[in-house]
Amino acid sequence: MAFPTRVTIVDVGPRDGLQNEAIQVSTSDKLRLIHGLADAGLPVVEAASFVSPKWVPQMADAAEVMAGLTRKPGVRYPVLTPNLKGFEAAVAAGAEEVAVFAAASESFSQRNINCSIAESLDRFAPVMEAAKAKGIPVRGYVSCVLGCPYEGEIAPSAVAGVASALHRMGCFEISLGDTIGTGTPRKAQGMVEAVAKVVPLEKLAAHFHDTYGQALANLLAVLELGIATVDSSVAGLGGCPYAKGASGNVATEDVIYMLRGMGIETGVDLNRLVTVGSEICAVLGKKPVSKAGQALGAKPGKGACT
Amino acid sequence: MAFPTRVTIVDVGPRDGLQNEAIQVSTSDKLRLIHGLADAGLPVVEAASFVSPKWVPQMADAAEVMAGLTRKPGVRYPVLTPNLKGFEAAVAAGAEEVAVFAAASESFSQRNINCSIAESLDRFAPVMEAAKAKGIPVRGYVSCVLGCPYEGEIAPSAVAGVASALHRMGCFEISLGDTIGTGTPRKAQGMVEAVAKVVPLEKLAAHFHDTYGQALANLLAVLELGIATVDSSVAGLGGCPYAKGASGNVATEDVIYMLRGMGIETGVDLNRLVTVGSEICAVLGKKPVSKAGQALGAKPGKGACT
Repeated sequence: MAFPTRVTIVDVGPRDGLQNEAIQVSTSDKLRLIHGLADAGLPVVEAASFVSPKWVPQMADAAEVMAGLTRKPGVRYPVLTPNLKGFEAAVAAGAEEVAVFAAASESFSQRNINCSIAESLDRFAPVMEAAKAKGIPVRGYVSCVLGCPYEGEIAPSAVAGVASALHRMGCFEISLGDTIGTGTPRKAQGMVEAVAKVVPLEKLAAHFHDTYGQALANLLAVLELGIATVDSSVAGLGGCPYAKGASGNVATEDVIYMLRGMGIETGVDLNRLVTVGSEICAVLGKKPVSKAGQALGAKPGKGACT
Repeated sequence: MAFPTRVTIVDVGPRDGLQNEAIQVSTSDKLRLIHGLADAGLPVVEAASFVSPKWVPQMADAAEVMAGLTRKPGVRYPVLTPNLKGFEAAVAAGAEEVAVFAAASESFSQRNINCSIAESLDRFAPVMEAAKAKGIPVRGYVSCVLGCPYEGEIAPSAVAGVASALHRMGCFEISLGDTIGTGTPRKAQGMVEAVAKVVPLEKLAAHFHDTYGQALANLLAVLELGIATVDSSVAGLGGCPYAKGASGNVATEDVIYMLRGMGIETGVDLNRLVTVGSEICAVLGKKPVSKAGQALGAKPGKGACT
């Protein structure tokens, strides 16, 4: 196995996580979460979404979040921008990095953002142009890279096509999202290999969901190919809206536990991270989904096991 | 990656799982579980433990379980036997395969079974002899192979020493247990590589706990070395007594989901297995710990995610 010596973790909890939680979190609790993640050593914290509050009411205070942000030197705080209007609002709010999102599945694109994949890319063209003019880096998300709730399996070539389009349009990094978590290690490797033929591997990030418990195994499989940027969510924030009661984003604590054990640097303080996860879960009135978080936070018991 | 084409799953739920659950399960519910696992295609179902009921009251009805067993042709039903007395009781109850257990950690051996590792091996000598005379295969468990609750990290050479001793004494298979679930992929590989120098790889099984969420990633890492026998527990039965509220055995459903996605045969019907897991969890009054089990058992919801 040939793994990277250092991995950059993008914690998407304050955005991808909280937008999929049922409870509306206050602006001050969001800021406490974002600041806590930065203080725990996360180099990238996805802070907010400038999607219309009609669609994602949990993110309606995006401008207030950005206004309240105390930036830590060296830490990036990207925000999601679906179109030029969102981009302009994000920039007005002080965003220095943005992200756009497209699907690798035509049906998912239609149902999730009411347009075809091609139309969604057209919609990003003015965002890319405006971002270039302002010198703002744009990250590209591709969803459904290992399965779609409507179409089932997705061909690696379809993922490569969308990833390549986003890259050609100017995205500095492409995050490959296993939105419904149905991927398994060999398929994850095959998908990354297909994408890496059209986008340089060092520009790819893995964004895996743990809905079927496969996220860490899938991450291990693609880290072995050289992937060195991983999206995750503190405490596993964000359920999967396509399977009630099921998990969504892989928990940052579990990822850090694995990488630390493998001698791969992340710069993240796991104990501080566990505390940050417990605090936001107290706000949400739930237990952290992270197993490492639960185990590290638990009191030792007694008993016998083999 | 070079993986086995077929993996043998040993479901330890009825023994290792139930002995670590707080609720006493009736003999008839245990039998329903064991029969359900065999009907779902599990080739090996660990059925009971003949440890003294003073130590493990959950297994006090081991003889009744064996008496009530309807054996499915081709399926093995091993039972745990700590000493000659337990072995004789197991054979009298109709057991056709048994298992003994030792620790790779001296402190754990002392606290778990009140003797040194060497003394525990001595205690197995008459079991091995009697088993040989009766033609009964003996499986050997080694616990704490990737960490000990009292000593921390365990040297791979210590694991290799105990595994080799059990192999030389006549165990047909050695199950390597990450009892507290602290292992990570590279360490799991290093441990298996060390053991495989003294015991043939095809005689080794991986018995990993998911306490820190690492079990599937660790399994992936050792499957890549050629390990083709995996212990797991339906619905993740069996918490970890060393960390209250934390997970124990990796869930069979999650393992099968990964292997199936990788094109590795197990002969197990995942949907039937999910039903078996839900049934025993209803008896225990808890949710299955398996993420694949939860996702496959959940009703689809609505919402947007990237």
